[in-house]
Amino acid sequence: MCIPGFWQQSHYLVTWCGLQIRCTLPLSLHSIMTSPLERLNSVRNHIQPQNQQLSQQPCLAPILGHNPTGPADIAAERAGASFNVEKMKYFWAGGKEEYEITEIAYQIIQRDPDLTTSHFFDQTRPEAREFTMRQIRRAVEVRNNLKDQRLKTALFRCLATYSESFAMRIYVHDLLFRNALNLFGSPEQLAEWQEDIEKFRVLGCFAMTELGHSSFLRGLETTATYDRENDEFIIHSPTLEATKWWIGLAGQTATHTVAICQTIIDSKPHGINWFIVPLRSPTTGRLLPGVTAGDIGAKYGRAGLDNGWIQFTHARIPRTNLLSRWVNVDRDGNYHPAPNPAVMYATLIPERLSIMAGTWMLVGQAVVIAARYGVVRRQGAKDQKIMDYQSHYVKLMPCVAFMYICNITNRLLTTQWSEMSELAQNDIHSYLRKAGDMHAVSAGIKATITWLGADTLERCRRACGGHAYSSYNAIPGIIGDWGVTTTGGGDNIVLLQQTGRYLIGTLHDVAQGRQAAGSAAYLNDAATVLAQPTCVFDNERDWLNIEAVNGVLTWLVVKRLQATATALAASDAWNDHLLSVTRTSELHCHRHLLDLYVAGIREAPVELHAPLLNMGRLYALYVVEGSLDALLEEEYITPKQARVVRDLYIRLCKETRTDAVPLTDAWAFPDFVLKAPIGRADGDIYSAYMETLRAAPGCFGPPPYFEQQIRPLTDPALNGKNEA
Amino acid sequence: MCIPGFWQQSHYLVTWCGLQIRCTLPLSLHSIMTSPLERLNSVRNHIQPQNQQLSQQPCLAPILGHNPTGPADIAAERAGASFNVEKMKYFWAGGKEEYEITEIAYQIIQRDPDLTTSHFFDQTRPEAREFTMRQIRRAVEVRNNLKDQRLKTALFRCLATYSESFAMRIYVHDLLFRNALNLFGSPEQLAEWQEDIEKFRVLGCFAMTELGHSSFLRGLETTATYDRENDEFIIHSPTLEATKWWIGLAGQTATHTVAICQTIIDSKPHGINWFIVPLRSPTTGRLLPGVTAGDIGAKYGRAGLDNGWIQFTHARIPRTNLLSRWVNVDRDGNYHPAPNPAVMYATLIPERLSIMAGTWMLVGQAVVIAARYGVVRRQGAKDQKIMDYQSHYVKLMPCVAFMYICNITNRLLTTQWSEMSELAQNDIHSYLRKAGDMHAVSAGIKATITWLGADTLERCRRACGGHAYSSYNAIPGIIGDWGVTTTGGGDNIVLLQQTGRYLIGTLHDVAQGRQAAGSAAYLNDAATVLAQPTCVFDNERDWLNIEAVNGVLTWLVVKRLQATATALAASDAWNDHLLSVTRTSELHCHRHLLDLYVAGIREAPVELHAPLLNMGRLYALYVVEGSLDALLEEEYITPKQARVVRDLYIRLCKETRTDAVPLTDAWAFPDFVLKAPIGRADGDIYSAYMETLRAAPGCFGPPPYFEQQIRPLTDPALNGKNEA
Repeated sequence: MCIPGFWQQSHYLVTWCGLQIRCTLPLSLHSIMTSPLERLNSVRNHIQPQNQQLSQQPCLAPILGHNPTGPADIAAERAGASFNVEKMKYFWAGGKEEYEITEIAYQIIQRDPDLTTSHFFDQTRPEAREFTMRQIRRAVEVRNNLKDQRLKTALFRCLATYSESFAMRIYVHDLLFRNALNLFGSPEQLAEWQEDIEKFRVLGCFAMTELGHSSFLRGLETTATYDRENDEFIIHSPTLEATKWWIGLAGQTATHTVAICQTIIDSKPHGINWFIVPLRSPTTGRLLPGVTAGDIGAKYGRAGLDNGWIQFTHARIPRTNLLSRWVNVDRDGNYHPAPNPAVMYATLIPERLSIMAGTWMLVGQAVVIAARYGVVRRQGAKDQKIMDYQSHYVKLMPCVAFMYICNITNRLLTTQWSEMSELAQNDIHSYLRKAGDMHAVSAGIKATITWLGADTLERCRRACGGHAYSSYNAIPGIIGDWGVTTTGGGDNIVLLQQTGRYLIGTLHDVAQGRQAAGSAAYLNDAATVLAQPTCVFDNERDWLNIEAVNGVLTWLVVKRLQATATALAASDAWNDHLLSVTRTSELHCHRHLLDLYVAGIREAPVELHAPLLNMGRLYALYVVEGSLDALLEEEYITPKQARVVRDLYIRLCKETRTDAVPLTDAWAFPDFVLKAPIGRADGDIYSAYMETLRAAPGCFGPPPYFEQQIRPLTDPALNGKNEA
Repeated sequence: MCIPGFWQQSHYLVTWCGLQIRCTLPLSLHSIMTSPLERLNSVRNHIQPQNQQLSQQPCLAPILGHNPTGPADIAAERAGASFNVEKMKYFWAGGKEEYEITEIAYQIIQRDPDLTTSHFFDQTRPEAREFTMRQIRRAVEVRNNLKDQRLKTALFRCLATYSESFAMRIYVHDLLFRNALNLFGSPEQLAEWQEDIEKFRVLGCFAMTELGHSSFLRGLETTATYDRENDEFIIHSPTLEATKWWIGLAGQTATHTVAICQTIIDSKPHGINWFIVPLRSPTTGRLLPGVTAGDIGAKYGRAGLDNGWIQFTHARIPRTNLLSRWVNVDRDGNYHPAPNPAVMYATLIPERLSIMAGTWMLVGQAVVIAARYGVVRRQGAKDQKIMDYQSHYVKLMPCVAFMYICNITNRLLTTQWSEMSELAQNDIHSYLRKAGDMHAVSAGIKATITWLGADTLERCRRACGGHAYSSYNAIPGIIGDWGVTTTGGGDNIVLLQQTGRYLIGTLHDVAQGRQAAGSAAYLNDAATVLAQPTCVFDNERDWLNIEAVNGVLTWLVVKRLQATATALAASDAWNDHLLSVTRTSELHCHRHLLDLYVAGIREAPVELHAPLLNMGRLYALYVVEGSLDALLEEEYITPKQARVVRDLYIRLCKETRTDAVPLTDAWAFPDFVLKAPIGRADGDIYSAYMETLRAAPGCFGPPPYFEQQIRPLTDPALNGKNEA
């Protein structure tokens, strides 16, 4: 198993955000494993999906009257794989080495009672809050004991896969709070805070949204007023609506926050800036004077994340707590603004890109569960696998394709942003030249994929019938956890408008003779594109060529942008074009993702090209199929072409359906991470499901309220059997 | 207030199912109210939406820094109503009397501490289970003390509106268990069980679905084997997959179930039948011998409903527990089958129709919340009401229209089914002649509106931005509660196929010269319809004529049915047409709903016709807009017509938006039922929201786990401040 060069990879990017973590330490294998044999066995445990040790349940004794068909059904699916699943696992993970390190991280987690719980879905809110913090405390401890940086990173990533609440708590501290400091803090501030943050002595949160204000940042009300006499800023929430709201970690945990505030000096406003504000005593956990903060309480999902609210009442902080890499206020109260306001919003870009990885890490789990259940569940007069029904494979296969799009494009965008982050440190002008496009990409893609992710989850839920209504089959929890992504981090409608404004502006620039770059480069050819007013595809092969299909999307985007721009030139009624703009922006994002995907799969081993191409084709046809109304309305395609698209789309779903299990096995989620009996890798779903229920608290009665609430009705002696 | 004839209404139909409850007792006003003045005041409390007593929150003292814009904003919306909202309330409720009785029922509930809870969304699963049973026990007690049958009915209906878990527990006992007995039980059996059921001495559930079998009833495995020697049936679950699953009330509560089983006599199968099987002791709550039953545990929603599972192991019941209205097994074991097997499925029809009322009772609450929030929330550079954004009113107004469709068509279908139920008692042949159509209607409409309901809820959630991620704003709970409707009670894909088969069969019958009736009567004109291959509408007025638009839908349905029938005649590959069939069936249901709606609004006061017509037009255009791809593909409409539809649809959303609040006020949900601070009737949303959070358990820290899980990290003395 020990391949030359295996451990020498020089750096590693955190795939679910990727902004600031580039690590160079070599892995010391022997620091974590006693023998190659042990390691080999551990890997084998994960590779063999039938292995019972991996599942949530202990090895089950045979059950009377239990002769399941699932194991043979799912084995047959695997036997029919059209490609090498091991190779796909490596490609998916970013390489064989990454795959194997991930395996080790999962093993560490699965064995540690502080990192897992056997009653994940039965936790109350207080229990979930505590469990998630316990995971963090323990994960820091475990990490401190590991020698290899890649394994440290994998440990946190795998825990984030195991629990979205863990992911979000770490995300807030590490990728919002710390990131704000990294991007906006001066070298002195970095030196002051970095180690405390790294060691979690400071637990940080990110206070942007307010009760009455969200997507429109300039409308935020919290003030930071300079008090020259004391060389301090006074942080204040002037109204109820100014209460910072939804702030992750603010409910119970955070010792500090970065807060975005309106900066006021000598009664003069200087716009919004970032300030570090202490919230709680690190030794007692009590709120500091001037700070009121409470827990946000019950939510749709993410019960382990203590979202909260914060009111500041003349809280005082040193002047030097203004994050002052780009802006500064000197001792005399002179305000030195940022060279370009755009740098102040940079923190939102990685926040949005990170959701791409969240998609395949979280939504992907639901897709695996639905895919496996689909080939194990049999129903109907012919006792068919439900996956063989047309309605079923057309429902699920585009979801599988969507996950491939997210995984593969995510790497490219992560790399792009990583390079830009270096520019931000070293060459701010080059950074700013690219920032507009990256901002538009991150905003639009965040909106596009979070909506599609929500749709995917609902498809998966319905594909599992009633059994996905059980929390124990994981999908309800994933839906709740995911829900916030469509409204938080910038409302999707608002974000797509930002992308739309960027595209219309770029189209205008091109008309003025300037050159478009990045995701909008295709607008340079706008005139040429529109010169061909109808689609010339005359056979199915054209529709199977991803670049060609992207040409169709290109035409539609350019056409619609042009029409909107013309209409807006006549009357500046932006609001009357909102729906058209947002839909066009979404299409632009799909075509950009397809562009990136085509580039991304070139890096795959040749033997994987066929299935990967099919996933790209399926996604492309999914998008076109959803745009048939617009393409027909614009008379770009004929009704005959529309029928070809529809038939081909369904046929491609049917053809790729035979790889449904292999394609999703490649994502290598262990059973203990999926947690869903009906998504068990070995296909023996019903016994695992039954055992889960029997082990749940309160499974067997009578319930505690029997005497008080039931017996007064059911006991004939108490409920007047002989009365009228 | 006391209008002649007011209390003399001769009967009342339960609107959320309506099958068996026709009540004739007159209301004795003085039995429930001490004086007319008191009653007048109570009604006024409910009519004035600003009244603080109705809200979840106590009257709030002025808050420093709180100068809300919401109250004036929502008042302005009300002032701009284009119609008389009081009149609409009466029409919505089914009459002024019904409206006022509903008010009284709500008052009873709001004042009774056993019927409500101040921490609805903070309940753990065990608390929710207990609370719901407490409501039932108390509701029975309160009901027994009321003299007026209509108020008794209203009490239960209003409690069902307050809590979906209450609704479902009652529904299972009253409308599944009791209904099965009513439909399938012999007169002797009715006499034996009816009073116990009415008094809740017997708490009944309905055991149909099994772990491995659901929509395909013939595949169910549980057996009822006749033991001639003992004159008993032996009920048995032969396999793990035969475990009855998802059975409401089976988890903790039910003393009895009706169970659907394969009837076996002398080793010979006689198909499925219904049996009454005792489950638990009514005095101890313990399981009876031969019965294993447990709680289903954590679910997506409906935490107060104890879904459960049941395994029978040679449980013995008397032969006379076979429900024997239509079938019978005599003492010698001779099986006397039903005259027509269709009667055995009749219980599914009211089950499915009842979801229509569930839509406006439950989904409607989310629509009210979103509508109110939309006009109170301001955002953006111009600080606009978010409802004024194009994306927003186009998102929400079709949801408002959908509720009107459900409420008004629901009455007509309820009446139709009520009449059919009487036929089932008195004229089985007439009943059976109509049963096929009603079955197809109930199946298709159940599927169509539950999907649309799910979509509506997600729209409402997103329309409230991040604040609908809070459980305290009710929408997450409604989404969870609603989720099961799309997969339970028959999977929607399966149901739409049933409707599709019925339609294709009817089309075939028509071609053979037979006459179609009921919902499919329009198929009699199939040939005429198809003889006009293009849409002749040449102006907007045509598209505002609901019947005319229904003609467009008719054309599309007939065209697609015809195409499918032709394709199926050539090759019996039903599976290759599944998607086409389900989509066509959905369209058929929409057009049927529109048909019913047009008939239904004729009963409304003339002054309400304008807003009601607009709701119908909006729904019709919503459906057509979603079918533009198909209409263009079939070349029935031109691209120009498509643009007219799209523009008109958006414009109608914009025009009706001015009535968003009046249209939803008319549904008269009290604040304590909605439970959502952001949906408060008085528009002062933020202070109520803040107070809700401050009152939630565990709002203020430090959390109980501070010493164990947080301090080891944050306390510098414990986390090696001076180490490397």
